[in-house]
Amino acid sequence: MNRLTHIDEKGDVAMVDVGEKLATRREAVAESIVSMTAETLKAVIEGAVPKGNVFTTAKIAGILGAKKAFSLIPLTHPLPISFADVELTPQLDGVSIRIVATVRCEGKTGVEIEALTAASIAALTVYDMCKGMDKSIVIQSTRLLSKSGGKSGDFRAP
Amino acid sequence: MNRLTHIDEKGDVAMVDVGEKLATRREAVAESIVSMTAETLKAVIEGAVPKGNVFTTAKIAGILGAKKAFSLIPLTHPLPISFADVELTPQLDGVSIRIVATVRCEGKTGVEIEALTAASIAALTVYDMCKGMDKSIVIQSTRLLSKSGGKSGDFRAP
Amino acid sequence: MNRLTHIDEKGDVAMVDVGEKLATRREAVAESIVSMTAETLKAVIEGAVPKGNVFTTAKIAGILGAKKAFSLIPLTHPLPISFADVELTPQLDGVSIRIVATVRCEGKTGVEIEALTAASIAALTVYDMCKGMDKSIVIQSTRLLSKSGGKSGDFRAP
Amino acid sequence: MNRLTHIDEKGDVAMVDVGEKLATRREAVAESIVSMTAETLKAVIEGAVPKGNVFTTAKIAGILGAKKAFSLIPLTHPLPISFADVELTPQLDGVSIRIVATVRCEGKTGVEIEALTAASIAALTVYDMCKGMDKSIVIQSTRLLSKSGGKSGDFRAP
Amino acid sequence: MNRLTHIDEKGDVAMVDVGEKLATRREAVAESIVSMTAETLKAVIEGAVPKGNVFTTAKIAGILGAKKAFSLIPLTHPLPISFADVELTPQLDGVSIRIVATVRCEGKTGVEIEALTAASIAALTVYDMCKGMDKSIVIQSTRLLSKSGGKSGDFRAP
Amino acid sequence: MNRLTHIDEKGDVAMVDVGEKLATRREAVAESIVSMTAETLKAVIEGAVPKGNVFTTAKIAGILGAKKAFSLIPLTHPLPISFADVELTPQLDGVSIRIVATVRCEGKTGVEIEALTAASIAALTVYDMCKGMDKSIVIQSTRLLSKSGGKSGDFRAP
Repeated sequence: MNRLTHIDEKGDVAMVDVGEKLATRREAVAESIVSMTAETLKAVIEGAVPKGNVFTTAKIAGILGAKKAFSLIPLTHPLPISFADVELTPQLDGVSIRIVATVRCEGKTGVEIEALTAASIAALTVYDMCKGMDKSIVIQSTRLLSKSGGKSGDFRAP
Repeated sequence: MNRLTHIDEKGDVAMVDVGEKLATRREAVAESIVSMTAETLKAVIEGAVPKGNVFTTAKIAGILGAKKAFSLIPLTHPLPISFADVELTPQLDGVSIRIVATVRCEGKTGVEIEALTAASIAALTVYDMCKGMDKSIVIQSTRLLSKSGGKSGDFRAP
Repeated sequence: MNRLTHIDEKGDVAMVDVGEKLATRREAVAESIVSMTAETLKAVIEGAVPKGNVFTTAKIAGILGAKKAFSLIPLTHPLPISFADVELTPQLDGVSIRIVATVRCEGKTGVEIEALTAASIAALTVYDMCKGMDKSIVIQSTRLLSKSGGKSGDFRAP
Repeated sequence: MNRLTHIDEKGDVAMVDVGEKLATRREAVAESIVSMTAETLKAVIEGAVPKGNVFTTAKIAGILGAKKAFSLIPLTHPLPISFADVELTPQLDGVSIRIVATVRCEGKTGVEIEALTAASIAALTVYDMCKGMDKSIVIQSTRLLSKSGGKSGDFRAP
Repeated sequence: MNRLTHIDEKGDVAMVDVGEKLATRREAVAESIVSMTAETLKAVIEGAVPKGNVFTTAKIAGILGAKKAFSLIPLTHPLPISFADVELTPQLDGVSIRIVATVRCEGKTGVEIEALTAASIAALTVYDMCKGMDKSIVIQSTRLLSKSGGKSGDFRAP
Repeated sequence: MNRLTHIDEKGDVAMVDVGEKLATRREAVAESIVSMTAETLKAVIEGAVPKGNVFTTAKIAGILGAKKAFSLIPLTHPLPISFADVELTPQLDGVSIRIVATVRCEGKTGVEIEALTAASIAALTVYDMCKGMDKSIVIQSTRLLSKSGGKSGDFRAP
């Protein structure tokens, strides 16, 4: 496909009509990397060891974000999400957290945006909880890792 | 400050109590870079030249996102936003769009998260509108560019 | 003023920056007229006499609508609404209901859109509850009746 | 049918139970007319020619409104909307804009309210963007143009 | 089952994946009891006799609450609710109101939380409308009365 | 006061107009008790010891609930919440969890409903996470513990 699916023949933005599509099992996995100082990551992990608080808070925000994506991103469809999860893992580099969001549904269109929204909202939640002690935080490289289901075939990021 | 402001003395996550803070004029500017293939950027720009559609759609989604940040990011405060704007500019490299979000309020706490949420939601909207023709899109480097107002002083990204 | 306040100097849509404005007492009153068959209006009134149900349902939906206007209409500001009310009155013509919505706040910008949204959502609720027995319903003449407060002066519809 | 479907046998408001209904392909088309001065319409069109801004903004607000109708209008059902679109056209009379909203789903009940909500929210967005230069704006004649699908048969406004 | 279904094998909170489950007809009925002084209940009933206002307001809030449960309770699934109702009945003891919420859907998981949320939001609405004259109000005994549909079998509270 | 503040002189439901009230520092503390089997509470606590998951999830849902109360409970006002917190504590009886929600703002009306909504949403979240292993759960005794600020004076539950 070499044109934007959300621009119709008149050049206007448009929702894609998925009425004729088949409802199939769909999954999308997205990732977001949040980088910060080693001192901040240490504070997150230490705060996290006893109670998992920063990570659980970001996970919950991300799952809720997946369910709200249809009302945040204009041209998406409401979808019967059957599963959404967000995992946060401090990276070995000592200065970043990797966020992986997985969303599944049985629907007429894919859940990439739901997974990317979950990862983004979780990343913003980490940012929010750390911003008081660190102004160098950057949310890096939010992207799709894989998708399956639907006519356009499976995808796995290189 | 060398601890997380959103973790209280018991190690639990907590909203910061801003009741005692002074309401001052606040501004935050955040950026998000969305990279894609040259072909996709060309389609966005060509779709954009006659009607500005992709950019206007992302801008509107971002502005609405700034106003919803309080309900998306758990430990933020509802704030009387007096201005929110999102600008999208194709970059000279031919393979990326720069999104800059500006949010202002007269409030007891800053609007960094509102600006970052606006940039992120706008970036996700661009992603959504381009994903049908390009699976290489990456939202890169969402970060704070500057903030002013409030006790902790002004900030400008290096 | 002979230009659109929501188009900035570059021709882009934009939220008006109200940061410099004074917070004053504001009120706006808006109206919506819903016309239907005499038979439908009779059913509404008879359903309404014992329990006020259709009117109370529309009133509640309208009041909630006033509070959600900031998240529905893109370029509006969140405002500290201090009062919202919606009244529905069957008209003497026997084929219409008049809806009057009043909204007040102490804020930096007016509450016209909040009052118009309240009237519109109340009208849509009446429509929804009557549509099963009447396909001729029309929401007519949603408009501002009056506004007060703010620099642009008071307004009263002719 | 000569009674209100949203009033149950006890005279209380009630959601219609659609559990037994068949899911069929549904479409509804609704219209809203926004009248204004010739000067305002000219400003909208001139602002619109280069960037389509007012129209795109209203379109996006309307599409989002269709997806939020279930949470705005109390007795509606959440529906798996497969398509929503809003078109805005300046009328030949030089003093009005016609808004046409189309919504489709495969569901157990119709999408009339979703289409009417989309048209109303788009109309309110036009109003909001023009109200600074024109206090004579009226949203006129919001009504259903056609519906298809479902047991009650197709409908086309006379 | 003797473990929490929302805690996964790693001890993290998790949404249950309902993708493999069958969509069946589901119903849940929940109850909430709101106790108050006899004087307050009398005021509610007297206010209610002519217009049913307190009860209709609480009913509408509860029905809307059922539809919003997916966005309020983190690990729930969005469900195609086909019916939601809330009934409020002053109790013979003269000092309490019984709220019964019924929700139905054809879905892959039950609607207990939707019914409990509807009852809770209706109870909070009664509380809100009475709190000015009575500070002794207590929302008591919010619980599931019955559920049917789904693999785990029917349930009826003893 | 011996009448309902949310019923106006015509017997209609109405939002209280707080425009004339003074903005003062307000606090409200509310409680909810969730009872369950000893086995379920044990599972919650054991799931909670390593990661605090059930409690953190319910806390986050409750804090978000406080911020959404204005859009859930029809006749409430949007308020500039400056602090919201929810604490969950397993009780010594071995069969219940006590939830205490605290909300503060500087506003023209109190935050009782915000605190009660936070406690209720947190209780529903605990219910949701435990319902798979326990159908005997009851949310008991949601009530106001104390309030301060405002003209009507301080309150402390007996």
